[in-house]
Amino acid sequence: MKRITRPTLLINEEKCLQNIHAIATKAKSANCTLRPHFKTHHSSQIANWYRQFGVEKCTVSSVEMATYFADHGWNDITIAFPFNPLEHRMINDLAKRVQLNILLESLEAMEAAQQLLKQKVGFFIKLDMGMHRTGLAPTNLKLIADLIAASNERIEYQGFVAHLGHTYGARGAGEIMQLAKVGLPILESLRDRFGGIISYGDTPSCSCMNDFNQLDEIRAGNYIFYDIMQSQIGSCSVENIAVCMACPVVAKHEERDELVIHGGAVHFSKDSISVDGTTNFGRVVRLGNAGWDTESIGSVVRLSQEHGIINASKEVMKTLKIGDLVGVLPVHSCLTADLQGHYMTTSGQRIEKMQKG
Amino acid sequence: MKRITRPTLLINEEKCLQNIHAIATKAKSANCTLRPHFKTHHSSQIANWYRQFGVEKCTVSSVEMATYFADHGWNDITIAFPFNPLEHRMINDLAKRVQLNILLESLEAMEAAQQLLKQKVGFFIKLDMGMHRTGLAPTNLKLIADLIAASNERIEYQGFVAHLGHTYGARGAGEIMQLAKVGLPILESLRDRFGGIISYGDTPSCSCMNDFNQLDEIRAGNYIFYDIMQSQIGSCSVENIAVCMACPVVAKHEERDELVIHGGAVHFSKDSISVDGTTNFGRVVRLGNAGWDTESIGSVVRLSQEHGIINASKEVMKTLKIGDLVGVLPVHSCLTADLQGHYMTTSGQRIEKMQKG
Repeated sequence: MKRITRPTLLINEEKCLQNIHAIATKAKSANCTLRPHFKTHHSSQIANWYRQFGVEKCTVSSVEMATYFADHGWNDITIAFPFNPLEHRMINDLAKRVQLNILLESLEAMEAAQQLLKQKVGFFIKLDMGMHRTGLAPTNLKLIADLIAASNERIEYQGFVAHLGHTYGARGAGEIMQLAKVGLPILESLRDRFGGIISYGDTPSCSCMNDFNQLDEIRAGNYIFYDIMQSQIGSCSVENIAVCMACPVVAKHEERDELVIHGGAVHFSKDSISVDGTTNFGRVVRLGNAGWDTESIGSVVRLSQEHGIINASKEVMKTLKIGDLVGVLPVHSCLTADLQGHYMTTSGQRIEKMQKG
Repeated sequence: MKRITRPTLLINEEKCLQNIHAIATKAKSANCTLRPHFKTHHSSQIANWYRQFGVEKCTVSSVEMATYFADHGWNDITIAFPFNPLEHRMINDLAKRVQLNILLESLEAMEAAQQLLKQKVGFFIKLDMGMHRTGLAPTNLKLIADLIAASNERIEYQGFVAHLGHTYGARGAGEIMQLAKVGLPILESLRDRFGGIISYGDTPSCSCMNDFNQLDEIRAGNYIFYDIMQSQIGSCSVENIAVCMACPVVAKHEERDELVIHGGAVHFSKDSISVDGTTNFGRVVRLGNAGWDTESIGSVVRLSQEHGIINASKEVMKTLKIGDLVGVLPVHSCLTADLQGHYMTTSGQRIEKMQKG
């Protein structure tokens, strides 16, 4: 880690491959397509790691991201975000060169798509499985039927997209699986009635389910990196977390057991978890030459724009000096990754990613 | 606003100039140097707007940002962040070509600076005025004396840096000024005793103070844009806010009075304020051809990576359709600006900014 002088997101490639392997193995044995969500890493180099598991399709969350991955050789892309009529030109351009799927959830959006999209695209019906963010209620059979009836060869029905985002409120595989077990029969009954496939998201349930046989496609993405939010939910162990921010120690305040690091909201974003009633913006660990230990040596308790404040024991404080690097396992790896200009593997290789236009 | 198809941060140049003018006028009449913090915008084009007010010095929060502004013609720069010994090479390179100031707050950091910095730099002593983030206690006269005693012609004492960050917890000019009135005599007594200048930060107190005569330098930065956090604190009115995110409406959920916009945590970051007990990630306003109305037509009540969820009245809901643009005044303009690839003025001009390396 000798070359690191400022906040740098380290990626353990081996852990990433193990994390992909775990999901890919379950998908393969259930004959289920893996269409990973690439919003977690925004990187064509990391996307290529999926190729060795036979992955040829991907999910993205914006038209801009779809364009980036199309430019990097991905030719079957689902934009898992409600269709935005204002972006019809970029969508038409993309649909000329790749198999593109969009999400629709209302007749208003369907009419706009019918009017504005000149190329052939697939569409999925976005269902609200309990998170109440987007999607139509799975009980709204009339609207589902109307949307499918309004489709044609140009705007072609593909199936249902479900994201069980409310699993993020669960704790432990038992609670996660309870939510999944409520959702799965609903999806199966809709597939039986209307045809098409079930494209299924959310890292917690994809991590905890052992059997993907009820599903056709797995769209989750965070599992490649995981993070301490996922370990708190119960999707993974701390050992599975494949990203760690290396941060320089820049000040010590022994009178209040605090270290100041360069590593703030512009590096981590501001998602937090609550641990024993205390807000936590990251788990502090020791860095070694080949990666990081998983044992916690402190917590990031406050974040401002560039500063992170770490609470640590007096014993830990004594072992760290200004100019040392510490590791921070992030709360939400997708938002943390989005904020980086590039990544670095634990073997020191620079990894490029999509830049904001 | 016809060319906007995805989340785009609009900047009202006229409001920015008015906001700078208000602070610059107070600084001029007190013979106080304006050294604005450029972490708010990260843009050399916007930095140039300060030139017409005679501004020639700036503040940044990282060595990377200092390098960017040095590359764009700024040759007197204070890095308002604790000295990071790991970045000594970049700091030495910078100090060869610009007047550079660093911040020190411990003998450990001073020793590292003495050992590693080969070029002449100025240093400020960072004081903790009550925020307890960084800095040494202003009552720690021995450490202050020791730091100044350890300085020399190469690492040259400049004065005290104070950021009254705890003013962010105040509400209204009265409360803000109470905090400032506690802090100012402390700073003056230190200046009397040790010499050097008082460099003073924080947008709330710089906005509310009418008289800068006790100060030598104003280092605040957010006031160029302001945001709804600052308007809630009482630093500005909603009319002063000079940035607004244009966001496409992509879904409507009339049964729960919610709109979905493209505009999420990767566009706004996740700072929030509490309004009447409800978490608020942004004030929703109408966009016009020349900018935005300030009247609230809803609130951003939830954010995920790319989605924003707006709560609005049934009357407002009726006036908006999928594919319309709405404006969102951000909670924290610095973090929102950091997330953009570029900005756009309300007259449609693209503004470039620093890219993450």
